[in-house]
Amino acid sequence: MSAVTFSTSIQDQLQFIDQRIRQQAGDEHHPDLGSALDHLLSAGGKRIRPTLGLLVGNMLGAPEEKLITLGASVELLHTATLVHDDLIDGALLRRGMPTLNARWSPAATVLTGDFLFARAAKLAAETDYLPLMKLFSETLATIVNGELTQMFSARGVIDRNNYYNRIYAKTASLFEMASLAATMVATEDEEVRASMKAFGYEVGMAFQIVDDILDFTGELSTVGKPIGSDMLNGLVTLPAIYYAEANPNNEDILSLPSGGWKDTNRVQRLVDAVRQSEAIQNAMEEAREAVSRALIALEDAPASPEKEALENLAKYIVNRNV
Amino acid sequence: MSAVTFSTSIQDQLQFIDQRIRQQAGDEHHPDLGSALDHLLSAGGKRIRPTLGLLVGNMLGAPEEKLITLGASVELLHTATLVHDDLIDGALLRRGMPTLNARWSPAATVLTGDFLFARAAKLAAETDYLPLMKLFSETLATIVNGELTQMFSARGVIDRNNYYNRIYAKTASLFEMASLAATMVATEDEEVRASMKAFGYEVGMAFQIVDDILDFTGELSTVGKPIGSDMLNGLVTLPAIYYAEANPNNEDILSLPSGGWKDTNRVQRLVDAVRQSEAIQNAMEEAREAVSRALIALEDAPASPEKEALENLAKYIVNRNV
Repeated sequence: MSAVTFSTSIQDQLQFIDQRIRQQAGDEHHPDLGSALDHLLSAGGKRIRPTLGLLVGNMLGAPEEKLITLGASVELLHTATLVHDDLIDGALLRRGMPTLNARWSPAATVLTGDFLFARAAKLAAETDYLPLMKLFSETLATIVNGELTQMFSARGVIDRNNYYNRIYAKTASLFEMASLAATMVATEDEEVRASMKAFGYEVGMAFQIVDDILDFTGELSTVGKPIGSDMLNGLVTLPAIYYAEANPNNEDILSLPSGGWKDTNRVQRLVDAVRQSEAIQNAMEEAREAVSRALIALEDAPASPEKEALENLAKYIVNRNV
Repeated sequence: MSAVTFSTSIQDQLQFIDQRIRQQAGDEHHPDLGSALDHLLSAGGKRIRPTLGLLVGNMLGAPEEKLITLGASVELLHTATLVHDDLIDGALLRRGMPTLNARWSPAATVLTGDFLFARAAKLAAETDYLPLMKLFSETLATIVNGELTQMFSARGVIDRNNYYNRIYAKTASLFEMASLAATMVATEDEEVRASMKAFGYEVGMAFQIVDDILDFTGELSTVGKPIGSDMLNGLVTLPAIYYAEANPNNEDILSLPSGGWKDTNRVQRLVDAVRQSEAIQNAMEEAREAVSRALIALEDAPASPEKEALENLAKYIVNRNV
């Protein structure tokens, strides 16, 4: 996140969140769980969700203690879904580091994910605010339901609505929750809550669209997974959807729903074609529009260093290493 | 549960709980999830946890609506842990019916369990009572932590404390939660809460001890899993612990920590020896003592048909098909 400069305070708060997360392994628990948490935390990630929550909450004057609890809860929930996700995908690399699944048995991985869910729920409960618990459980249901829908859906399907639903469940729902939850502990003003919910939603949608673009244009070293891996899993993301709309009779595109995505040569050719087409810029334009809507949602927020940082965070989303 | 006769009202309430559980698949969700829930519900189970919660809550005058929500939450949480458990054990049969894992892919099974967790949490939140959410998340953490500890512990270890911790995490914690949660929506009286928590705890411990006895003495048709399956998984339960204490130099016992539990002939011989020893009666006596403590915890409860039914339920635990 080098493009955004945070006040020391945010960096400190992020450290408190990390500490809070590490504490969750607890003394009574098996030491291996502690090392698993360390491994998951050191795998890094950009802590973008907690950062979002902290900035929103600080901007609106939320109590710091609750923001830290919430940030830890959101990041643990995120990590839990990643752990199970990796198991489901059989992924061996995430962010360029070995996944838990690559080092542990599937059984240990399932349970570690469950444990992280339990701890995320416990932290959410510690905010002592019931509507937050509901938000937490609804978000968890949205994420898991999205994964189930994806699992039971046919592969290689080219469908915009399907795509938007999927990335909402997978990514934007948790960004939305991070932003809304931080707002909820600051104010009961429904208008402010709706605006900050929208801000989180739009930033999350933009974030995932850019992630999906990077799956075409990125390098293994920065993306941390092989190029074209979405399509090789039968997932048709926004760049490919734009390409398909512009080239409806392309043979590789036509082959996708009937299993063409299993053919690595075909996928390599298609990835190259998408990269060289306008599809990438069209998808990026869509991400930029989401960021614009996010900035509009932020307009009425009080002028402050945090507001500025949130604007930068939103803009940074579409200026990552593409 | 033929040994216990409930009023029509409890039966109706149990049906409401089943309906509430089935609703959780929801319309927006993938139809396969609905069939999975149907499958899980039709696999039956004795609904002993919701029954416990309903009886306690009715006895103490808790609002019916909350009891039904709680009952559905507890049973979903229980089912979620079973689903992941089956995956972890690679179990293909539970209660004599094929497990989800035997019909679905591991990935779908992981996600179905996650979905059930999410729904259980959502229902717990719908009780609109924050201390219940905390109880819920703590219980979930206890259960999962117990499974993790078991996974990372050496197999074939003969250790009483280890055993009690394990069956608390695995079973008694959820009985305790069912009883305590139903009490919490009825009264703020800390003494009553402590008593009913103890009642749930003791009943749960007795229940698991008897389950573990049945793993030695039961028939496949009633237990729904092969005899001796605990020991074949390297788990030394109470009957074997009593046998080991009485026969410390028995060769099969001595072999357990170093891997003797992997030898099916040895385990078969040991299971037969335990069955023919006093270990079974000693373990059963311990279950009876737990039931006695449960009945003492119940003593101060107001005389009522529910109190009587709870007494019967506790006694029934130790009179199952042994």
